Amino acid sequence: MHRTKIRIVEGILDANDTIARANRDDFAAHDVTVVNLMSAPGAGKTTLLERVVRGLDGVRVGVLEGDVQGSLDADRLASLHVPVAQINTDPGFGGECHLDANMVRSALGSLPLEDIDLLVVENVGNLVCPAEFRIGEDHRVMVSSVTEGEDKPLKYPLMFRACELVLVNKIDLLPHLDFDLAKFLYHLDAVHPGVERMLVSARTGEGIDEWREWLLRAATREPATA
Amino acid sequence: MHRTKIRIVEGILDANDTIARANRDDFAAHDVTVVNLMSAPGAGKTTLLERVVRGLDGVRVGVLEGDVQGSLDADRLASLHVPVAQINTDPGFGGECHLDANMVRSALGSLPLEDIDLLVVENVGNLVCPAEFRIGEDHRVMVSSVTEGEDKPLKYPLMFRACELVLVNKIDLLPHLDFDLAKFLYHLDAVHPGVERMLVSARTGEGIDEWREWLLRAATREPATA
Repeated sequence: MHRTKIRIVEGILDANDTIARANRDDFAAHDVTVVNLMSAPGAGKTTLLERVVRGLDGVRVGVLEGDVQGSLDADRLASLHVPVAQINTDPGFGGECHLDANMVRSALGSLPLEDIDLLVVENVGNLVCPAEFRIGEDHRVMVSSVTEGEDKPLKYPLMFRACELVLVNKIDLLPHLDFDLAKFLYHLDAVHPGVERMLVSARTGEGIDEWREWLLRAATREPATA
Repeated sequence: MHRTKIRIVEGILDANDTIARANRDDFAAHDVTVVNLMSAPGAGKTTLLERVVRGLDGVRVGVLEGDVQGSLDADRLASLHVPVAQINTDPGFGGECHLDANMVRSALGSLPLEDIDLLVVENVGNLVCPAEFRIGEDHRVMVSSVTEGEDKPLKYPLMFRACELVLVNKIDLLPHLDFDLAKFLYHLDAVHPGVERMLVSARTGEGIDEWREWLLRAATREPATA
């Protein structure tokens, strides 16, 4: 990449980080823990959220939905009677492929932060740019579906490195795939040694209790330092 | 989106289109038909290519591989003894999430265009930005895996509108999924009425002959007008 382009990109990311810190201060002021949930399109983010939202006893959940267009996922989650705000990244253009701190900031007014303990931000389905833009979150979680193949950590290393928990989803399909789970985990450890991982199936419910417990712990402990 | 930002984005796309036209002129001068192959991560682009490369009798195939990092797919395809060039989009930064005309242009020197009839460009796995950047291609094809869910045309409409052929892949998994094929096709027709589509399985080989025939027709007929 040309040096001038690098400087411009770094400038954009610096500006983003400044707004992300402002978001973080607002979240902290309201005692809201924020999880940035990322994955490729169709890996199962929304279903994994639907599965746990009801059972998070004592934790008031809110959701911020990021999509290029539409509000399909927000509608699904709103039906669970939690506060949901929608960000569409497409006004005036083909659409941004990620959420940035400013988009999140502009949506905060539509969420009752004082009534939320845990805010889950469902990012745009993409394994590249969402990993580059902090939004003021405490935790970054990614979902990787076994249908996507064993090579994904090697092909999208920044995403797998940026997160602290990897949900390996759709494991109910393993008997029907040529997917070598050991090989995937080997690749995962090659790019992010020892990162926490859970084998889950949003469809059958396998591993969902563990995922819910993780969210409960995240919502009740002190936020990590910025 | 702010008006100034729209202007900058339009400027970037205008500059990209200018370089795309130069690529196209070079391809035309060498009688090379170019297919831009796009999908979400792990939808099966490389496997669908591996499946057809050998059987394209009389058509000399070349491949341009786009990845954020690494050369896993290029290595797989090179083993089929076709000319392969690799573009990595990550130098100096977290990585670009798409190919643009300039990246393709910079890679042309590594391909023997005079010995290629059909150049397949495997784009970075992403359903947003690749649809926004022309690279000088004649045809745009996308792969959508049934594991990604029925809602994808509604969530990533620009991508489904930008292409002229949709390969609906991994249909061997249909018995194991809660995927309503009729609903997916209904959504597809809602965003791109009547677009050509093929139901395929790179794993079992179902529909692969049809996909190979499509490429043969593309490679032997006159390129579409720019």
